[in-house]
Amino acid sequence: MSTETSNLHINPQRLLEHINELAEIGKIGTTGVRRLAHSKDDLKALALVEQWMKDANLYTRIDEVGNLIGRLEGEDPSQPILMLGSHIDSQPYGGRYDGTIGVLGAIELVQSLIEEGHTFKRTIEIVSFSDEEGSRFNKGIFGSRGLVGELENNELERKDEDGISRREALKSMGLDPEKVHDAAYDSDRLFAFLEMHIEQGPVLENEEAAVGIVTGISGPLWLTVTYKGFAGHAGSVPMHLRQDAFLGASEATKALHTIVQKRQPASTVGTVGHVKVFPNSRNIIPEEVSFTIDLRDIDLERRNECERELRIELEKIASNHNLELDIHEDTNSEPRYCADWIQNIMINQAEHLKIKTTELMSGPFHDAMPLSKVCDYGMIFVRCKDGISHNPLEYSSEQDIIEGTNFYYHTVKNILTEYSH
Amino acid sequence: MSTETSNLHINPQRLLEHINELAEIGKIGTTGVRRLAHSKDDLKALALVEQWMKDANLYTRIDEVGNLIGRLEGEDPSQPILMLGSHIDSQPYGGRYDGTIGVLGAIELVQSLIEEGHTFKRTIEIVSFSDEEGSRFNKGIFGSRGLVGELENNELERKDEDGISRREALKSMGLDPEKVHDAAYDSDRLFAFLEMHIEQGPVLENEEAAVGIVTGISGPLWLTVTYKGFAGHAGSVPMHLRQDAFLGASEATKALHTIVQKRQPASTVGTVGHVKVFPNSRNIIPEEVSFTIDLRDIDLERRNECERELRIELEKIASNHNLELDIHEDTNSEPRYCADWIQNIMINQAEHLKIKTTELMSGPFHDAMPLSKVCDYGMIFVRCKDGISHNPLEYSSEQDIIEGTNFYYHTVKNILTEYSH
Repeated sequence: MSTETSNLHINPQRLLEHINELAEIGKIGTTGVRRLAHSKDDLKALALVEQWMKDANLYTRIDEVGNLIGRLEGEDPSQPILMLGSHIDSQPYGGRYDGTIGVLGAIELVQSLIEEGHTFKRTIEIVSFSDEEGSRFNKGIFGSRGLVGELENNELERKDEDGISRREALKSMGLDPEKVHDAAYDSDRLFAFLEMHIEQGPVLENEEAAVGIVTGISGPLWLTVTYKGFAGHAGSVPMHLRQDAFLGASEATKALHTIVQKRQPASTVGTVGHVKVFPNSRNIIPEEVSFTIDLRDIDLERRNECERELRIELEKIASNHNLELDIHEDTNSEPRYCADWIQNIMINQAEHLKIKTTELMSGPFHDAMPLSKVCDYGMIFVRCKDGISHNPLEYSSEQDIIEGTNFYYHTVKNILTEYSH
Repeated sequence: MSTETSNLHINPQRLLEHINELAEIGKIGTTGVRRLAHSKDDLKALALVEQWMKDANLYTRIDEVGNLIGRLEGEDPSQPILMLGSHIDSQPYGGRYDGTIGVLGAIELVQSLIEEGHTFKRTIEIVSFSDEEGSRFNKGIFGSRGLVGELENNELERKDEDGISRREALKSMGLDPEKVHDAAYDSDRLFAFLEMHIEQGPVLENEEAAVGIVTGISGPLWLTVTYKGFAGHAGSVPMHLRQDAFLGASEATKALHTIVQKRQPASTVGTVGHVKVFPNSRNIIPEEVSFTIDLRDIDLERRNECERELRIELEKIASNHNLELDIHEDTNSEPRYCADWIQNIMINQAEHLKIKTTELMSGPFHDAMPLSKVCDYGMIFVRCKDGISHNPLEYSSEQDIIEGTNFYYHTVKNILTEYSH
């Protein structure tokens, strides 16, 4: 750990004990966890975290969408709240760090500030957001969307694999589903939001930095592209008479990569992740192939340029191979930028702590995404091994988590000191 | 129909009635059939065809592998047999022409020869081969392989989807599975084999020819190629750190097509028909992609050249994208050429009949493939609409089937006249 001992203001042992104890709930194998939203294990974990919040002298409550909120009342209740948070629910076959370190890290740093005798004018709230992952009802960032008043119509009727609706799941937690809209905060109640999270990517590892300062979350453009050609026996249709949909999909994949590669070293990324081939038989020419495009960039204009170029290429390929082309836009999210002033505080704190950091964008969504619509926000990333996440192999070292949490401590303390008058 | 009436020696009405009546057994929708090997419908169809053989004055038997054989004894039993045949079993969702016209056409032409009072020194056998399609036990040309003594060890233990083994299916037909090897003919018993079949491809339609003279069956090279990279979040892994297995598969598909295109207008064809992507999630970079290569050419040396070039490209792609490469050879069949003397007879007969024919290779396997290993063989293709087969939409016009069968008649008659001394 590169942080000098004199600058270490959190209690590493307590933090690591909390992480390890929480990982016992819903444990998979040696290091994995399975804590699906609103499940017994999720609620058991929530109760434990609530106890730790109370131990830290926070006032706790569960709001109408299942968010656990721990509050440290400021001396000046008129000042909008500084909110910190992340989530503790997991993927079905998930790891112990995703989300968790952001909740437990926030509790640790606030408890440390309290124990050191600091008092602040501004109120702090730590939120463990409900159902960030979205695996159970195939729709995530539920708690954070609820908190900013962005729930969709009828989304309480979404059902899990066992036919249990979100409405029923909330009831089984003792909540009243009729009141979910009461969870929404007016935007003037919030000053800023901060979240610490594992990176879920390989950039920090590659840069040999334990901690990263996030510049923004690059919402994806999600397309589903379908080429329709004509099936035929792989042995009997001459090349010039073919309408091979998979050849089209292959050229489209290559075209996407060429378009994205031209922008490097910009943050543009493009992926074909899901592919469906019909009839998918080794001796039949593919008749129909659907594949997904995931295109992201922190610079929306650059992403739009890539999309325009891609659509032209997709048409050319269709025309060259006599294929029908259908493009369906599934999601079109705009990038959400972290507040410059928060990034600047982080840069200054990193210099002060003499720790190496890297600025990077976030590809994945986070609870910070909905929060960005109602207040300024900032994010800290902690290095994770090989970029692996959403998998029991997910791993961040104890040193990195401690360094990240201590960096988080200094960032929060600076904000509370400099921006509360 | 371009055949002059004076040259029409078969009975078109009887042939078409037989085709339509047989299509009622295992009928799907308006035009499709489902007659899985050794199934009740397959046996019902076999019994009907056997009756037609008897009506034609053939001596019939079912051999030890389930082939129905109708025999017209020649005047000189010492002369090796001229065998004609195809199959009447179908794909699960198949058409009424595939195989069937070859069996019913052979019966029709032999019956016509008999009715016209012709006698021959050489014995003729018409075979309806059992389980050509191979859908039920995932292993086809069973009857024809049985007839040439090419059954594999333990293949009677292969099971269908309901867990019924080939052994049990043969027993339920009243056959003794212990005796399957008794079905094999010594090669000196066979003089030549002829098969008429729908093309299952678009060449004849494109050439506006009702009938085609097959030059050979181009056995495929079947490879399964696997690229293994590394999964990662589609939003968080920068392009230069990716090991995207689907990008590899896409470039390989393009490379295959480039290699094959270079050989055009040769008969080389290459297809990627089956693709499996893991984890196949829209926001995760594909970690492992397996895909099949089907490469065929009537010229084996040219096919081998293509394979060599492809393997070099596959390695380059693996190296460029930091992927592990595995290549598994599933099948490596050599092309089987039709006998020149039979093709020449066909060419002469087509001139005589003043019908347009085209010479073409067969991509798909046929019962003629195993037979080619023990005797000379020839094949006639009949045009089918849009090259569609293995589908209820499969269609050959009545005129084309009549023209093909009459052409078959003249070919057989010429062989029996000129080559039986």
